[in-house]
Amino acid sequence: MPNKIVRLTTRDVRFPTSDHLDGSDATNKDPDYSAAYITLETEKGDRGYGLIFTIGRGNDICCKTVEAMSHLVIGKDFDDIRTDIGGYYNELRSDSQIRWLGPEKGIVHMAAGAIVNAVWDMWGRAEGKPVWRLLSKMDPEEFVNCADLRYVEDVLTRDEALAIVERNIATRDRRIRYLEDHGYPAYTISAGWLGYDDEKIRRLCREAVQQGFSHIKLKVGANVDDDIRRLRNIRETVGNDVILMVDANQAWEVNEAIEWMRRLAPYKPWFIEEPTSPDDIMGHRKIKEGIGEIRVATGEHCANRILFKQFIASDAIDVVQIDACRLAGLNEILTVFLLAAKFGKPVCPHAGGVGLCEYVQHLSMIDYVMISGEIGERVIEFADHLHEHFEDPCVVRKGAYLAPTAPGFSVRMREQSVADYEYPGGSQWRARVGRTGG
Amino acid sequence: MPNKIVRLTTRDVRFPTSDHLDGSDATNKDPDYSAAYITLETEKGDRGYGLIFTIGRGNDICCKTVEAMSHLVIGKDFDDIRTDIGGYYNELRSDSQIRWLGPEKGIVHMAAGAIVNAVWDMWGRAEGKPVWRLLSKMDPEEFVNCADLRYVEDVLTRDEALAIVERNIATRDRRIRYLEDHGYPAYTISAGWLGYDDEKIRRLCREAVQQGFSHIKLKVGANVDDDIRRLRNIRETVGNDVILMVDANQAWEVNEAIEWMRRLAPYKPWFIEEPTSPDDIMGHRKIKEGIGEIRVATGEHCANRILFKQFIASDAIDVVQIDACRLAGLNEILTVFLLAAKFGKPVCPHAGGVGLCEYVQHLSMIDYVMISGEIGERVIEFADHLHEHFEDPCVVRKGAYLAPTAPGFSVRMREQSVADYEYPGGSQWRARVGRTGG
Repeated sequence: MPNKIVRLTTRDVRFPTSDHLDGSDATNKDPDYSAAYITLETEKGDRGYGLIFTIGRGNDICCKTVEAMSHLVIGKDFDDIRTDIGGYYNELRSDSQIRWLGPEKGIVHMAAGAIVNAVWDMWGRAEGKPVWRLLSKMDPEEFVNCADLRYVEDVLTRDEALAIVERNIATRDRRIRYLEDHGYPAYTISAGWLGYDDEKIRRLCREAVQQGFSHIKLKVGANVDDDIRRLRNIRETVGNDVILMVDANQAWEVNEAIEWMRRLAPYKPWFIEEPTSPDDIMGHRKIKEGIGEIRVATGEHCANRILFKQFIASDAIDVVQIDACRLAGLNEILTVFLLAAKFGKPVCPHAGGVGLCEYVQHLSMIDYVMISGEIGERVIEFADHLHEHFEDPCVVRKGAYLAPTAPGFSVRMREQSVADYEYPGGSQWRARVGRTGG
Repeated sequence: MPNKIVRLTTRDVRFPTSDHLDGSDATNKDPDYSAAYITLETEKGDRGYGLIFTIGRGNDICCKTVEAMSHLVIGKDFDDIRTDIGGYYNELRSDSQIRWLGPEKGIVHMAAGAIVNAVWDMWGRAEGKPVWRLLSKMDPEEFVNCADLRYVEDVLTRDEALAIVERNIATRDRRIRYLEDHGYPAYTISAGWLGYDDEKIRRLCREAVQQGFSHIKLKVGANVDDDIRRLRNIRETVGNDVILMVDANQAWEVNEAIEWMRRLAPYKPWFIEEPTSPDDIMGHRKIKEGIGEIRVATGEHCANRILFKQFIASDAIDVVQIDACRLAGLNEILTVFLLAAKFGKPVCPHAGGVGLCEYVQHLSMIDYVMISGEIGERVIEFADHLHEHFEDPCVVRKGAYLAPTAPGFSVRMREQSVADYEYPGGSQWRARVGRTGG
């Protein structure tokens, strides 16, 4: 008895976050955090939910692109997909005509990711398991079959990937229990947006430490004297034991990044995130060589596993960041985790936005149980906003993401939120349209 | 008196080329060559035409993306743009919200390119000059202001860019006359599509040599024994003086490319094009080091100048290919030409498709007059199809592109062609729809 996917719907959901400069940084000055939100439904009534996170304009294009891929979705049998989700993922990311528009990057890649993530969600719901638990019970062969090894075999063979997973199997139950008891470490970005004034940042940093966070991140890159003053303020407020990170959101040329970071070095940032173009592997390596102890992090705008392969294998970065919505879904993210594990680099996922925290908690937990086998320096980004729009929002307590227990991938939105914030027709937007130029 | 842009229209135009496997290769198995075709119009009646080349499904998404950028187009003053087209280009490629969907890659980047190219077309028409002549009369400062040096300054400073152009100024008129007399060398791909049988390839190769072509390119990568047989056939047919190139269209893993090309080496290909993922700078360098005399070429899928910077500066490739529609238009392409000139690498543009030959003839001529100052090994790809749909099609005679003389960028389509092939409503498509899954 087949169980074909018979419906694919998309909704353009946007939140007017630019009103208060939440999310503002040196490059993304006025984001309206948005979700191209998709729902799959099978003939037997299984449902799966997925989303692409965007920052406003263009969210409609993401919806249209998902719809343009409906020939790869409608009529597919859910049970067949579960038998070979790696194969299904391959179809999604390599349609013979749509591929031209990437290839494997930008909107078409994000759309493929949202669809396969919705399938993972549906699978979790069908088995009554959160997605991180679904993958944590796979055997190594089945697990590696989910990962996308195309174009990375010169650096990571299938046998190497298998060996990485196999070494973890005997001890995985211990790590599952650890996550259920302690959660996974988080760091907060809610304190340090570029648009916030000094007093607000001081207050938020104090509150973050009181809430149990050991890491705080600050946006930098607009003005070096402002950055120095803010970092000094934060160090005065929270002391030297808190781990500080700084994020330039691609503001600098390569040489400029080196000069700027040398001036921020006295405040001991752990890493500088996105110092320059996210496509510049060799530029990041040069920056890393030029700034001494400070680590280099990037990845939230890294387009695919092939670019990650080069960043990781050439030692161009120290800390690997991933975005749950930029890569082609969980399947490609597994590849990045496997590459990072081979080269001993920590993965600290990008989150915030809308739905990203919900997604990435599963990803880091899968990494810990099945791939890296350790937490070490790893932390997941956390921003404390927009979670109220989800049915099963992530929960962060004492600086840690609690392990999700509800079935699925945690990004199902509340129907009322979708109705209120749908763009441009939702009640929250009707009075505003025109303002954003959207 | 301002002269604002008041209209931006898009048309989804597709040609059913998959019927005869024209354009078939190891990755692109069934292309329907298509154009997301755009028209700009000012209040005074100036018009400009641009297009994004795609291979079918997703062409509608490109149209929608151009429309989603209309807030960057409508109301802009054409004269202001001409005063600072570099600044206008920057606005197009870095909208603070849309940028998230690239950044600077994929559909949003292609859309920015189509718009700025339409502006260049409008400018050429307004001055009664083909675009290559428009840029050939600029002074070095004005010319370099058009190029996008963001994120490449660690490898190419503005002063270096200026010096490259300045050294050519005294002799440019001689090169303009050369182009008007002799045109620019072309090579043909019309002979070697993967879907063609041996007899057809033999016949087409013979005809190509008779038509004056000194270079012929063959698609490879599906089956190594087939590739060897076809290359032997071609060598038997046209002899050893014709320069043969082979194109794998991303078919291989890195190590596989090295092994495969060692088997094709006896037939003396000049270069192997797209041996693996177009994002794999380090992979290409490894391939280059592994295949001896055979050159490595890539670029038709290279997403932006930042990736090109790395391919060129790290000596990962020998021959730089550009696509007129993948980069963000002429402004970003100038950067690639400048980078290639600094490192002494020939640029051989990708063409074929629909409209690409029309576009790239201008680009190579600008490079010759203003940047590289030489032709040397450079050749422009040529495919002999679909030119009949353009008002001012490119003309190739005796293996050379004749210098365009009509005003503009040569991609204005015939209104009848647009009407006949508009998808899905045009007369040529009404009977077919459903077949392509589009």
